[in-house]
Amino acid sequence: MNNTLTGACVFAQSGGPTSVINASAYGVIRAALDAPEITNVYAAAHGVTGILNDTLFDLGMEAPEELELLLNTPSSAFGSCRYKITDRGDLDRILEIFRKYDIRYFFYNGGNDSMDTCQKVSEHLEEAGYECRVIGVPKTIDNDLRGTDHCPGYGSAAKYIATTVAEVYRDSIVYDSGMVTIIEIMGRHAGWLTGSSALAGLSGSPPDLIFMPEIPFNMETFLQLTGSIYREKNQCLVAVSEGIRYTNGRFVSEAETSATDGFGHEQLGGLAVTLAHLVKRKTGAKVRGIELSLLQRCGAHLASQTDIDEACLAGKASVEYAISGGSGKMAAFERRDIDGEYHCGVVFQPLSVVANAEKKVPREWINEAGTYVTSEFIDYALPLIRGENSRAVENGLPRFANLKKIAVG
Amino acid sequence: MNNTLTGACVFAQSGGPTSVINASAYGVIRAALDAPEITNVYAAAHGVTGILNDTLFDLGMEAPEELELLLNTPSSAFGSCRYKITDRGDLDRILEIFRKYDIRYFFYNGGNDSMDTCQKVSEHLEEAGYECRVIGVPKTIDNDLRGTDHCPGYGSAAKYIATTVAEVYRDSIVYDSGMVTIIEIMGRHAGWLTGSSALAGLSGSPPDLIFMPEIPFNMETFLQLTGSIYREKNQCLVAVSEGIRYTNGRFVSEAETSATDGFGHEQLGGLAVTLAHLVKRKTGAKVRGIELSLLQRCGAHLASQTDIDEACLAGKASVEYAISGGSGKMAAFERRDIDGEYHCGVVFQPLSVVANAEKKVPREWINEAGTYVTSEFIDYALPLIRGENSRAVENGLPRFANLKKIAVG
Repeated sequence: MNNTLTGACVFAQSGGPTSVINASAYGVIRAALDAPEITNVYAAAHGVTGILNDTLFDLGMEAPEELELLLNTPSSAFGSCRYKITDRGDLDRILEIFRKYDIRYFFYNGGNDSMDTCQKVSEHLEEAGYECRVIGVPKTIDNDLRGTDHCPGYGSAAKYIATTVAEVYRDSIVYDSGMVTIIEIMGRHAGWLTGSSALAGLSGSPPDLIFMPEIPFNMETFLQLTGSIYREKNQCLVAVSEGIRYTNGRFVSEAETSATDGFGHEQLGGLAVTLAHLVKRKTGAKVRGIELSLLQRCGAHLASQTDIDEACLAGKASVEYAISGGSGKMAAFERRDIDGEYHCGVVFQPLSVVANAEKKVPREWINEAGTYVTSEFIDYALPLIRGENSRAVENGLPRFANLKKIAVG
Repeated sequence: MNNTLTGACVFAQSGGPTSVINASAYGVIRAALDAPEITNVYAAAHGVTGILNDTLFDLGMEAPEELELLLNTPSSAFGSCRYKITDRGDLDRILEIFRKYDIRYFFYNGGNDSMDTCQKVSEHLEEAGYECRVIGVPKTIDNDLRGTDHCPGYGSAAKYIATTVAEVYRDSIVYDSGMVTIIEIMGRHAGWLTGSSALAGLSGSPPDLIFMPEIPFNMETFLQLTGSIYREKNQCLVAVSEGIRYTNGRFVSEAETSATDGFGHEQLGGLAVTLAHLVKRKTGAKVRGIELSLLQRCGAHLASQTDIDEACLAGKASVEYAISGGSGKMAAFERRDIDGEYHCGVVFQPLSVVANAEKKVPREWINEAGTYVTSEFIDYALPLIRGENSRAVENGLPRFANLKKIAVG
């Protein structure tokens, strides 16, 4: 009863986009538009910088059916930022804007840096005696947030990666001349995405080797293993994380690819191309390096319906939680398997648990040699990629949300 | 009546695979298994080399439901080759194998090189007085075969490219810091695939510039246009063909990327990465180079249903045509629009029309500046990408055909 807080809400998106970040946006926006306690629903352009710059859109002016298309529209529909709040001036400015529009609910959709922002904003508003409920809505394809079983965005990226690896596997075996294929996958600090390539095995098309950031990379071992698999099978498919490092902590990508040749000529190839080149030099095999690049984080056409549903749920539950009085927390997923069947519920974790921390793949989910994931990893990841989405298509092309983005005021 | 020819048939796949080459395989195999005139249905391993090596699989031993899964299984299920028949010894050997198995029908699924093989085989068998019907079944994502409105495989690759460009566009505009994104697309001699990126415009996410092999590439112009669009819009998305060349005929990819620095240090980056680097040096923009690589030719999850249906039809029609007496021809598509609605029929073209020839994008389908396609191109390509496929999925992953591949004999 005394929990009732009436006012406007602002939603913003931060950090690298995902295929389903807008599904969380939809969850927040729809629930907020429907909530009697929330007078106006705004989105900030380009994350928290849109608040600082006073660039807000009035979502009440959008057509409901366009908003619903956000469920299958990839990448941050309201723009993103990588801005980190460092000084009090920013926090004062946010308070000023919140007062200006009577904003009493703030939903920030992002990764661990964004949860840090959330926490700072939450504490500052509290100190200033300005009542406002601040909730973090998680997103990251990297799946490296603490305090949650998994992150919205991961399942879709994992599905994209596993499907693509399965398809590339089929392509890489067609010639009897043989081939070594290196696929470079995102995830600078954790191997969740690279490990998901193993799911292609369930399609009969597994990678032969998986190299993740959790295991120090040894070039000798890599070349030796790749070479021996190639000699044995006449082909070898390797999934490698962009984030692999040598034992000295240096990223292999930086050590091997940004190394100029001593004459200032920059080496432009990415990690996959560079590793493929080294394999070729060592084994004489035909090689191909493939970088999945942005495709794995924006491939909404292949988004997991489980992930879409959960991303939307995280947004919706955040609004409900805030209305009921919750603040200073992040929506998190709790796995609640029933009779061996996957179920997922939303709980709320203190922002401090999540902010600036990273969750890596447990060592025991990686084989002893450090070259593949175990069945525990597969059991963990598989339910997250299930479910084919039913996106809107026009003329064989995706029909994304077209928002009017009408400025407030 | 006197056309009736009874005997075995052999099917083989050649050249680079596509998402739907196995749909043509299915069309051939299903029709051949059902034809009373055809006693046995074989597939050669790795194209014509499987005939030369006497490595044939008996397709009568496969489960019908697994064969049907070929409709959505990417890449050459029976293996491919790039072998070009040059001497009489090969032709004599093929005749020997055909006699051994009483092969009276030969279906060769490939591009223009394969049609050359088809023609040589056809002529040789005729000279030898060995009755055998030889039909070419087209495939190529490059869409550069003469004598046909379009090629099986093109529509699916075009759909993959247009969808991916639309998604990457959404991803490339999220930060207000701006970005120049260069996407490298296959097609060494013709711009059909690169041009299809323009279809993303129908999704509200068009590339800004398209550079195709048909137009001599000018680096100055490229850098100037990219820079001015970036300055104006704070972002620029460029689709570029791997096959762009300077006016002197040299591939830009070779001139700029394989150029060692004079000390024997090979430059590893692909064309996209190299062009992105040059844009960065000139404009200071944040840049990203993305190579669609194999993904565009094996992305069966996004195959166009129109393309799948037509690829299958080309295979089926080839068998029917051969049984009715046809030989020395390639199945080709004829566009037969009715009341402005796209329809496609199969006709048969002499192999000589197709072999060793290339069909380029007409100059008038490219704008005057040579930096985009016209509406004629869009009208041509759009019907080919329509139709969402209904592939089999298990556990969120593609369920590909698992064939037993039982050797003959």
